[in-house]
Amino acid sequence: MQFLSRCSGRSSLLALALTLAGCAVSPTDSPADRSYEVAEVGSFHVGGRQVTLAGLPSREIVFTEGAAPRKVDPNGDFETGQMYAQFVRLKNPRARYPLLMWHGGGLAGTTWETKPDGAPGWQQFFLTQGHTVYVTDAVERGRASWSRYPEVYKTEPFFRTKQEGWELFRIGGAGSYDSDPAKRIAYPGTQFPVAAYDQFSKQGIPRWATNDAATQTAYDALVQKVCPCVIVVHSQGGNFAINAALHAPDKIKAIIAVEGSGAPDPDKVDISALKNIPFLFVWGDFIDQNTSWKQYIVAPNKFQKALRAQGGVADRLDLPQHGIKGNSHMLMMDRNSDQVAALVQAWMDKNGLMK
Amino acid sequence: MQFLSRCSGRSSLLALALTLAGCAVSPTDSPADRSYEVAEVGSFHVGGRQVTLAGLPSREIVFTEGAAPRKVDPNGDFETGQMYAQFVRLKNPRARYPLLMWHGGGLAGTTWETKPDGAPGWQQFFLTQGHTVYVTDAVERGRASWSRYPEVYKTEPFFRTKQEGWELFRIGGAGSYDSDPAKRIAYPGTQFPVAAYDQFSKQGIPRWATNDAATQTAYDALVQKVCPCVIVVHSQGGNFAINAALHAPDKIKAIIAVEGSGAPDPDKVDISALKNIPFLFVWGDFIDQNTSWKQYIVAPNKFQKALRAQGGVADRLDLPQHGIKGNSHMLMMDRNSDQVAALVQAWMDKNGLMK
Repeated sequence: MQFLSRCSGRSSLLALALTLAGCAVSPTDSPADRSYEVAEVGSFHVGGRQVTLAGLPSREIVFTEGAAPRKVDPNGDFETGQMYAQFVRLKNPRARYPLLMWHGGGLAGTTWETKPDGAPGWQQFFLTQGHTVYVTDAVERGRASWSRYPEVYKTEPFFRTKQEGWELFRIGGAGSYDSDPAKRIAYPGTQFPVAAYDQFSKQGIPRWATNDAATQTAYDALVQKVCPCVIVVHSQGGNFAINAALHAPDKIKAIIAVEGSGAPDPDKVDISALKNIPFLFVWGDFIDQNTSWKQYIVAPNKFQKALRAQGGVADRLDLPQHGIKGNSHMLMMDRNSDQVAALVQAWMDKNGLMK
Repeated sequence: MQFLSRCSGRSSLLALALTLAGCAVSPTDSPADRSYEVAEVGSFHVGGRQVTLAGLPSREIVFTEGAAPRKVDPNGDFETGQMYAQFVRLKNPRARYPLLMWHGGGLAGTTWETKPDGAPGWQQFFLTQGHTVYVTDAVERGRASWSRYPEVYKTEPFFRTKQEGWELFRIGGAGSYDSDPAKRIAYPGTQFPVAAYDQFSKQGIPRWATNDAATQTAYDALVQKVCPCVIVVHSQGGNFAINAALHAPDKIKAIIAVEGSGAPDPDKVDISALKNIPFLFVWGDFIDQNTSWKQYIVAPNKFQKALRAQGGVADRLDLPQHGIKGNSHMLMMDRNSDQVAALVQAWMDKNGLMK
């Protein structure tokens, strides 16, 4: 990886050190202290189609205390397959393109908002850096809404347990979770705000394993609607972002894959269309201590290597290799999230994504 | 109802006419044209508790294309009962208190955001008027997330059909909905952007009829966290807002009930604690043409009358009686939503809610 901060033309590690020392983000640059002029906060749904149900029995329901009961016929037309996008449009953005923030599995756009410990997250960080920001909820998640199963969605949803999140998001090792917060044992030196883990768990959203095609279709429609753009994508979203770029390579000006958990196989998919899109792959700590992540990282690593072989920009920010220890899978919520965001911002500066 | 615009000390109907003529909101005040200085965009979950499931069978699932399959044990700890709040905090608000925007049944906070026709909604309107705004998703809706049933929630959810929304939200009369958008027959003179009805339907969120107590508890926790405040509340939310005020009368500085569909019975509940809280009840058109609404309006009307008998401010804005015709139940999405919002803003001005 080559890294240049905005205020230094020097090479990789020195620039990194300068950035960490506060060059790109000074203490007065804290996202909690900066304001910005907003032209509009808004949202929309994109994608989706009408589906019709028939033959289901009626029910009578009192919906509001004090209101009269109402007979409800569940049969009829519904929308399904849409996703939700919320934007904060700056009056005078410094970034050349809007920044799209795509969440990972079992979560929604809240990933990027205020952190579970109450400190500003990456949405606020990148707003203060001059990006118009779109935070989305993928199909079936959050404000995108979800559809009846098994009539529309073909399978049952899955609800992630706190234990699974604790381990899969690499906050602690196998068996270190306990129902009692006081008895949970995190990795030594974790950057995750452990006392806020239950608060984080409130962000969890049920998910289906059978909606990937609809999700991709909606993301592709989003790209057609709001891009050219830069995408910062987390975990499960990585695959969707890479496929979106394959479907519309001229619309995507950069992809920052934060712990992307999947990627197309370059032996099976022609990825040459991506060679003009700069990629940054960001990885946290403890990956080699987690059975799942040792598997998940294989495909993205192969993809990154193939991308670089095409002559494209396929940079890598392995945080522990740069002396930044203790980051979980949810590194945008970790205590040092501003530090990591500043490195991403410096990479965007270097790659000509700012005015 | 007594109405005074900001720029007039004259009496009710004349002031209303001045407001409609653009006194409080001039053409250059359009929410699409104004910007505002934001200190922070952020969010949080409030309320909720841990629940533990046991004895459910395991499943093996491939969550991301290209990723390895993973065995999933659905048993364990989960959070349930939380709600979601997103804030846009102005650097220099003109309003004395933050404005909390609470949605109605089968919907989420999107109610207040960009309208289905793409024009700015009430969130943007009140931001441009100088309010720090909190838009929430109640328990089980949108980004609040929802819980497994029947293990945690005791009943099945209900999915609103497009036909039910069309009729219940008074866009058209009974039997006027058709699966084919071209064949739907709206009320003559409707202000709802009929061509955007399918787009609006994408905002629909499944709901349960058995979570009112948890929802109220979460709203009460929200009030403790962010108030003193003013609440603008729609439809099903009306009941929650009134109960929240009964539970914390000193925290609520005003309630604007937009087509609130329920209210406590003043013959059964002591509402004297509310007499210092100004209320505005806003009603759209076509109520006397709709069987459900002729029932729903009874309880709020009785409540309003009792409130006024206590000596409190219990104003009423029956739009058709003021010459504003054609508004649906979703009046914050209607074409004349800015006009109605300006009347609400004028009422807030009059009631000393602005600096």
